[in-house]
Amino acid sequence: MTTVFIDGLGLIGASLATFIKKNHPTTRIIANDLNPENLLYMKEQGVLDAASSFEDGAKNADIILLASPVAAICLRLKELADLSLKDNVLVSDVGSSKVQIEESAQALMAKGVAFLAGHPMAGSHLTGAKNVDTKRLVNHTYFLIQENSSQEQLSSFQNLLSAANFDFRLVDAASHDQIVAASSHLPHMVAFALASTVNKAREASAVDWGKPAAGFLDATRIAKADATMWTSVFLSNPQQILASLDDFEKEIGRLKQAIADQNADALFKDLTTAQAARRQMEKE
Amino acid sequence: MTTVFIDGLGLIGASLATFIKKNHPTTRIIANDLNPENLLYMKEQGVLDAASSFEDGAKNADIILLASPVAAICLRLKELADLSLKDNVLVSDVGSSKVQIEESAQALMAKGVAFLAGHPMAGSHLTGAKNVDTKRLVNHTYFLIQENSSQEQLSSFQNLLSAANFDFRLVDAASHDQIVAASSHLPHMVAFALASTVNKAREASAVDWGKPAAGFLDATRIAKADATMWTSVFLSNPQQILASLDDFEKEIGRLKQAIADQNADALFKDLTTAQAARRQMEKE
Repeated sequence: MTTVFIDGLGLIGASLATFIKKNHPTTRIIANDLNPENLLYMKEQGVLDAASSFEDGAKNADIILLASPVAAICLRLKELADLSLKDNVLVSDVGSSKVQIEESAQALMAKGVAFLAGHPMAGSHLTGAKNVDTKRLVNHTYFLIQENSSQEQLSSFQNLLSAANFDFRLVDAASHDQIVAASSHLPHMVAFALASTVNKAREASAVDWGKPAAGFLDATRIAKADATMWTSVFLSNPQQILASLDDFEKEIGRLKQAIADQNADALFKDLTTAQAARRQMEKE
Repeated sequence: MTTVFIDGLGLIGASLATFIKKNHPTTRIIANDLNPENLLYMKEQGVLDAASSFEDGAKNADIILLASPVAAICLRLKELADLSLKDNVLVSDVGSSKVQIEESAQALMAKGVAFLAGHPMAGSHLTGAKNVDTKRLVNHTYFLIQENSSQEQLSSFQNLLSAANFDFRLVDAASHDQIVAASSHLPHMVAFALASTVNKAREASAVDWGKPAAGFLDATRIAKADATMWTSVFLSNPQQILASLDDFEKEIGRLKQAIADQNADALFKDLTTAQAARRQMEKE
């Protein structure tokens, strides 16, 4: 019987647990979480078999899945290097920044423990086990960095999550961090900054603005995301995020110049290109 | 019998026409549009009574509603000043930048023609009469700048649109342009720039990124908006938009600094403030 230990039973950890239990009901799922509500809820759902301390859970697991914020995952990987784990244990994670996590796993891998770094692109501004919505999470891209794990371990891990029908993609840690800096970290950074800017303007205004426009609400929906998690994400991938922000500021700068110059042709060309790209990306 | 002439039967013009006809079925609605499909479709819907040239439509109307892009509205206001219109005609518009429109209406108002500037905050990235969805458009904020229109004309205009249950708010043109620069123009500008940045990074990458993340798609939905309309909007409210972009860049700059300094406290504080503001605005 396979035992999976999940450290962090928030939205992602609880979702993966649900997918595992769905296609592999005999798999024993043990978890640890700072918030007992997450543990109790998943127990009620019939997904969690038992709660345990990090140390006990890790020692008894065939698969250890680290699903806490990036900073915590890095600490856990170092703690795991000092524990006596099962032979053939596979350690994986769901952190959003892989270079820093890869570095934190060096001591563990040096001990010969197999590590398979991962990142399901299935986040939400919603948090906690209670918000698990497996329908919303199927078919997402799931990046995997094989590290020192075997083909067999890679295949069995993918099979464990078969219920989610993820689109697994093998990449290296550096490429992953570049991709998510632009595709995920930058949009979140921009949404937080946009929400702050508009809120300050509203508060400074003598006029009541009425209900916010639908466009603004859509553009900033992800600014409702968990601040603790995103602080950890932003600080764990600084170079790539700062580079993406530089690229973004160049785009803003070019649009500003076109407006300042009243250059309709340049502005229309940029907006048309952006619009076409956005419409195309939606189809992929 | 009241005759309403609408110049521009795109999404907004056609939506307002639909609301007018709903509660005021005997009102005669005449319209002009560059795209005959919009006219034919609204005729089929039983909303449009007749199509006409701009000149004929304007001359025979009790209410003239200008619903084309801002640049076109400004030209139409100047054309109207040279036409012999009905006595007691009321001219209104739906343009997204009011100071420039107010300036363009000076000659018309100097002739004693009543002008009531307006802006329903009910846009969409969808365009054209075929996308009219009155359910989606009800209860929105509708800014009105009274200009030289009478209380009676103001009331009858609001009554004409009673089916939409708009939240009408009287403001001055300058305040309006400040509000929409931050609440609408800035988010669109940011979405266009974000879509361009991410697309360029994807195209430059050696790795296939897979499906775009849901967060990115939400944050850039409004970048699918009509490029012609938004070029016109951005160029018609330059000072306020550039000021909003400066404020936004300061927010981005502070977040960048916190990341570069690995200042978790400052970053967490900013993200928490942005998150709380965004969640609060949604409730209003």
